[in-house]
Amino acid sequence: MADGLRHKVVLDESEMPTQWYNIVPDLPSPPPPALHPGTLQPAGPDDFAPLFPMELILQEVSTERYIDIPEDVQDVYKLWRPSPLYRAHRLEKALGTPARIYYKYEGVSPAGSHKPNTAVPQVYYNAKAGVRKLTTETGAGQWGTALAFACAQYGLECEVWQVGASFDQKPYRRTMIETFGGTVHRSPSELTASGRAQLAERPDHPGSLGIAISEAVEVAAQSDDVKYALGSVLNHVLLHQTIIGEEALLQFAKLDETPDVIVGCTGGGSNFGGLTFPFLREKMAGRMSPTIRAVEPASCPSLTKGVYAYDFGDTAGLTPLMKMHTLGHGFVPDPIHAGGLRYHGMSPLLSHIYELGLIEAMSVPQTECFAAAVQFARTEGIVPAPEPTHALAACIREALACKESGEEKVILTALCGHGHLDLASYEAYLSGRMVDENPDDARFTEALADLPKVDA
Amino acid sequence: MADGLRHKVVLDESEMPTQWYNIVPDLPSPPPPALHPGTLQPAGPDDFAPLFPMELILQEVSTERYIDIPEDVQDVYKLWRPSPLYRAHRLEKALGTPARIYYKYEGVSPAGSHKPNTAVPQVYYNAKAGVRKLTTETGAGQWGTALAFACAQYGLECEVWQVGASFDQKPYRRTMIETFGGTVHRSPSELTASGRAQLAERPDHPGSLGIAISEAVEVAAQSDDVKYALGSVLNHVLLHQTIIGEEALLQFAKLDETPDVIVGCTGGGSNFGGLTFPFLREKMAGRMSPTIRAVEPASCPSLTKGVYAYDFGDTAGLTPLMKMHTLGHGFVPDPIHAGGLRYHGMSPLLSHIYELGLIEAMSVPQTECFAAAVQFARTEGIVPAPEPTHALAACIREALACKESGEEKVILTALCGHGHLDLASYEAYLSGRMVDENPDDARFTEALADLPKVDA
Repeated sequence: MADGLRHKVVLDESEMPTQWYNIVPDLPSPPPPALHPGTLQPAGPDDFAPLFPMELILQEVSTERYIDIPEDVQDVYKLWRPSPLYRAHRLEKALGTPARIYYKYEGVSPAGSHKPNTAVPQVYYNAKAGVRKLTTETGAGQWGTALAFACAQYGLECEVWQVGASFDQKPYRRTMIETFGGTVHRSPSELTASGRAQLAERPDHPGSLGIAISEAVEVAAQSDDVKYALGSVLNHVLLHQTIIGEEALLQFAKLDETPDVIVGCTGGGSNFGGLTFPFLREKMAGRMSPTIRAVEPASCPSLTKGVYAYDFGDTAGLTPLMKMHTLGHGFVPDPIHAGGLRYHGMSPLLSHIYELGLIEAMSVPQTECFAAAVQFARTEGIVPAPEPTHALAACIREALACKESGEEKVILTALCGHGHLDLASYEAYLSGRMVDENPDDARFTEALADLPKVDA
Repeated sequence: MADGLRHKVVLDESEMPTQWYNIVPDLPSPPPPALHPGTLQPAGPDDFAPLFPMELILQEVSTERYIDIPEDVQDVYKLWRPSPLYRAHRLEKALGTPARIYYKYEGVSPAGSHKPNTAVPQVYYNAKAGVRKLTTETGAGQWGTALAFACAQYGLECEVWQVGASFDQKPYRRTMIETFGGTVHRSPSELTASGRAQLAERPDHPGSLGIAISEAVEVAAQSDDVKYALGSVLNHVLLHQTIIGEEALLQFAKLDETPDVIVGCTGGGSNFGGLTFPFLREKMAGRMSPTIRAVEPASCPSLTKGVYAYDFGDTAGLTPLMKMHTLGHGFVPDPIHAGGLRYHGMSPLLSHIYELGLIEAMSVPQTECFAAAVQFARTEGIVPAPEPTHALAACIREALACKESGEEKVILTALCGHGHLDLASYEAYLSGRMVDENPDDARFTEALADLPKVDA
């Protein structure tokens, strides 16, 4: 048997958690409700029924602390779960830091990210409700891949609108979605009224998650047996992702260690919420006291430069109004490489938790992220997706601060996916063609003028 | 705790084997020696010294049954090892077979394949010997990626000649090698005499592994502190890969199960030898009796259509002569998508074992392979590299034969890598542009006329 450093904690699949954690009942106050965009009254289950099956709607508004993971979903999860928790010994050594760096790696999944954690139960509940086809948007392509994989497990059709900038930069993602049996359209597309309206204004439109959502929602709303699936933002999505944090708690317990700082990247918030909510539960109960920090791209800083207000989840204004940190539903971020973080808003639940002061937020420019990612790849052997490079950059900042101060902090990072299908972004970085965002971009405030008027 | 089907057996890193297995002393007769190409006398350690450090040369000719894995190598292995053994419940169900299908998955490594298992020790021994730079060839790019990753662990430079056809089809592989700090050239290149000679004949030459080996060997032979590393074929490479089979034996023991049939793809033979040699030891000792079957592409069938003869390992004739199954060192296979299997020869050790009747061989056309791969991806969630699609196709043939006969055979397949960087080949398949090889290709015999004359 081998001695030496321990690099990872793997759990047997018999140790996989069997419940998701709902943080809502543990918060000091509940998050504000979604509003119907016409009446401005709290939206009820019926308002969501054209888009989602009832079991997911009930999870969306649930106040139960724990929700059982169906056995059929557990069975699919075990194709890749539990995911490993790594100790980054080699990165620590390269940095010369006394900090102990851990990362929870979700790149082992079929889509190569955390996204199947919610795709699988979403398709499961839709299949139970007799739905024939699911539509969705995708940014970098991780979510579209995850949903196509999940649809293949339950025999549903899957139709994906991919943000134009990512569609053009990452052709392999489309092939991967098609390999799992899905269909992909470049968004904005000629297939929907909302897509055509965008193309009329700008024929070479790079797209945005907000526009792609409008297109997918528009198609789903037209047929009874077609529903829509969202890969982040909503409560039930973050709920499904909590299996990440529940596993990480079991793994830290095996190490007899607790994190002092947890950093994760935030686009819509599901990766971050999934890892951190179970730790936040422990923190609110006084059992540990980690600093929990969200990291967003400098080009799409909804938490650090947006406002906390009611806004639409999509660009065309088809969704209920949600109170969240937003840059305005009309905001179109630069086509940066972390396509999964190009969303104008932030999960309402996570926004509420941020307002409660339970988490921190920061933003990082993309060349710093890729410098961190290359250092990570050369030491730890994993090429990260562009999204978690933000978390790694923040993690390295923290580790270097520990080097300065001599503190032996325990840092936990969410490494939510690999970058095997994002290598064009590494090519841009390594060749010196990647540029940083303008942190004073005037567009960060322009789109706020168009927020819907709501007396909250 | 979750009940239900068991999908995988993971080992803790403390259970990782600490020795490689050398099959040579257990064989009924030793493999024929390599010959010096000038004298035709058995090549001694000194003949290999311009290319390899002495510790690897001694492993190449070792008759010790077990060789300790250095602790420093074990430490790097633990970044991804032990690798999981999966039971393919969902594929079995889709096939309707009573067979139990297992696959040992090497795609969890930094390069996404089994290649780092030998890249890491090779670089380790070179670093110990004071070598500054390693040169190598790569086909699909898996080996070049593995060597670049390993060089990053020990601070060596890495220069890679990639087979032209793969270089053109798979641009992301080049970026991945560069992300790990390596340099990549398209082969044949203008940088070497052997490359220039090929380009003079055919400016758009698609390249071959044999040509790329000539280029890398030529550059390494010119400097004392530059050596060459080979990703397959040689005894020491297959030795390092036996950690795959040793782990699989431990995992089968935990399941109280033994395989009846083992199938793996063969290019140079290292993936196949790595998985099967420990099982072959058990078979020769009478402790189990699996059928062991090598699967090669119909376009490069060295075992099933080649001859067993002394030939050069490279195209230009720079290497020692090795007795092996070969299509002739001048053979240039079609630019099929499984670039890692486009090698004119076969591991001399594996060729010898085939001649001894200890293993079987077959070939499969590539569209059958990709049909198998898509079915596998949609059921098991992993998109295989083009090389192991051959093993999957053979595995599915076996499983369907079991369906016919009602036999509950236990099938073990080597899933030696993921296809995330090979999605262009899936695009070709899904769009219907992929064609099968001509099984009666006249070139299978043409190049045999140029075999070196040796009285063996």
